[in-house]
Amino acid sequence: MNKMKKYAYGVDIGGTTIKIGLFTSEGELIEKWEIPTRTEEKGKYILCDIEKFISEQSEKKNISKEEIEGIGMGIPGPVEDDGTVLGCVNLGWGTCNAVNLLNEMTGIKVKAGNDANVASLGEMWKGGGRGFSNIVMVTLGTGVGGGIVINGKILAGSSGSAGEIGHIPVKDDETEQCGCGKCGCLEQYASASGVSRTVEKYLKAHPETDTVLSDDLSSKAIFDAASQGDKFAVKIKDETGKMLGKALAGIACVVNPEAFVIGGGMSKAGDILLNSIESSFKHYAFHAQRETEFRMAELGNDAGIYGSVYLILSDV
Amino acid sequence: MNKMKKYAYGVDIGGTTIKIGLFTSEGELIEKWEIPTRTEEKGKYILCDIEKFISEQSEKKNISKEEIEGIGMGIPGPVEDDGTVLGCVNLGWGTCNAVNLLNEMTGIKVKAGNDANVASLGEMWKGGGRGFSNIVMVTLGTGVGGGIVINGKILAGSSGSAGEIGHIPVKDDETEQCGCGKCGCLEQYASASGVSRTVEKYLKAHPETDTVLSDDLSSKAIFDAASQGDKFAVKIKDETGKMLGKALAGIACVVNPEAFVIGGGMSKAGDILLNSIESSFKHYAFHAQRETEFRMAELGNDAGIYGSVYLILSDV
Repeated sequence: MNKMKKYAYGVDIGGTTIKIGLFTSEGELIEKWEIPTRTEEKGKYILCDIEKFISEQSEKKNISKEEIEGIGMGIPGPVEDDGTVLGCVNLGWGTCNAVNLLNEMTGIKVKAGNDANVASLGEMWKGGGRGFSNIVMVTLGTGVGGGIVINGKILAGSSGSAGEIGHIPVKDDETEQCGCGKCGCLEQYASASGVSRTVEKYLKAHPETDTVLSDDLSSKAIFDAASQGDKFAVKIKDETGKMLGKALAGIACVVNPEAFVIGGGMSKAGDILLNSIESSFKHYAFHAQRETEFRMAELGNDAGIYGSVYLILSDV
Repeated sequence: MNKMKKYAYGVDIGGTTIKIGLFTSEGELIEKWEIPTRTEEKGKYILCDIEKFISEQSEKKNISKEEIEGIGMGIPGPVEDDGTVLGCVNLGWGTCNAVNLLNEMTGIKVKAGNDANVASLGEMWKGGGRGFSNIVMVTLGTGVGGGIVINGKILAGSSGSAGEIGHIPVKDDETEQCGCGKCGCLEQYASASGVSRTVEKYLKAHPETDTVLSDDLSSKAIFDAASQGDKFAVKIKDETGKMLGKALAGIACVVNPEAFVIGGGMSKAGDILLNSIESSFKHYAFHAQRETEFRMAELGNDAGIYGSVYLILSDV
């Protein structure tokens, strides 16, 4: 490591806000900020805004360009190893090389990865996956996302779409479409919105169901009811856990990770859901993989800035 | 590459025979041999036999030890990156470091990998996967095996069991056990023996079925009947293709390869099966992965010696 280089920035670009973290080159977070994502005019201001913000903050803190190891970026779209972004709907971007562009603006070394993958790397480095170098991160949010880290590096896939585990086909007779256009994807059942959809559909067909659930059919309400012993909610929780456990057993057959790290809004249901997933996993897992570890994610919304700065710090 | 080093050996250890190939360091196969695998006394003679054979052949051909780049080995069990074999039932081996042992006997550099993984590497290098560096090899034999190559390197997995795709859970209501002890594994339906089992079971329950199939219910007989238009056999072929295509769509969501390479005895059914797999894959695949390529394996039983020698030659 170059001793002149004392700092690095981690940037996590989302559709609404851009999170920026300033880190020491030992990986300690010094300060973090959020700025709005200006998606107008095909997102042409996004990289300029990042450049401007970083240059202003560095000036404020008397950090010279020579002291900055680099800038890591998480981007909400497929990113190839050389930094080529293959289009990014949420930002308005077409195909471009975000790494080269930001590097030309700043004169600082830049690296980038897909946001979900970069968040997985962050969890491996400083979060729930600490101590492992082979993990599969499972993000249970509005959708089901994933990120795969092999020997401490992101598995990006040949077209940047490795770890798209929400779109594993799990059900043949589904008639409603997933956001991706297919029918029967994992995220139609195992995401927060998937769980709500399942419950809503069931209660409409069976209004006589004995449950405390009524108007609020958010996944939070459902898992809260399950933890209070509501039998219907417990059944839904078990079925969600079963489906996820089975899918993760299949994923383990492919990449055989040391651990699964479970995150995303729905993971706030905590042990009650995690236990269901893990016991289903053990049932469906290949014997050599039955002892795969399960961990809760720990970094929440900061996983992206940690992971993106790690792209820089792990490379020096 | 050291110019003194003109040759390398690739060794593929099977439960019955050991295949050994002598290659130039440019990767041309000079000669290949088979010797019996002596599994008696916990397989203690296997490495000695390999050492002895290689040393005799080298002497015959006037190849000095200094001219040999190394020996690569494919081993039928889980192999960790440092050469530790975590037990190998077919050879009678417990946990041992086969790489260190053979290296001490020969004084030559040794590398090793799991046999299925090494065969995948061989297919990538000189077989059906030529031109790709990210492939999933699918071996449809007595069982369903797999091997995953990412950026030109084997994905071994954290306990050496990545690519065990035959044990992906695909069916919930199966009552018969897979060889692994679980119920409902992919290889219970999509392997040569799985296809035979399915047909036998169906014909026993429905003896009135209109089909040319009678005594010979081997997968070869079934796919031959399908290619001759036997409606029942065509249905079986389509169902096998559907199940495989769906499983491969799930695998693509995980590792997003450039290509699937289909090999093993059952792949001799050729295009008739491959087309069924590929069209089912396109149906179930995530949109960004729909154009994943399909190739037939080309090296047959030689994939192992090619892949194992590539462990040596790709590392120099």
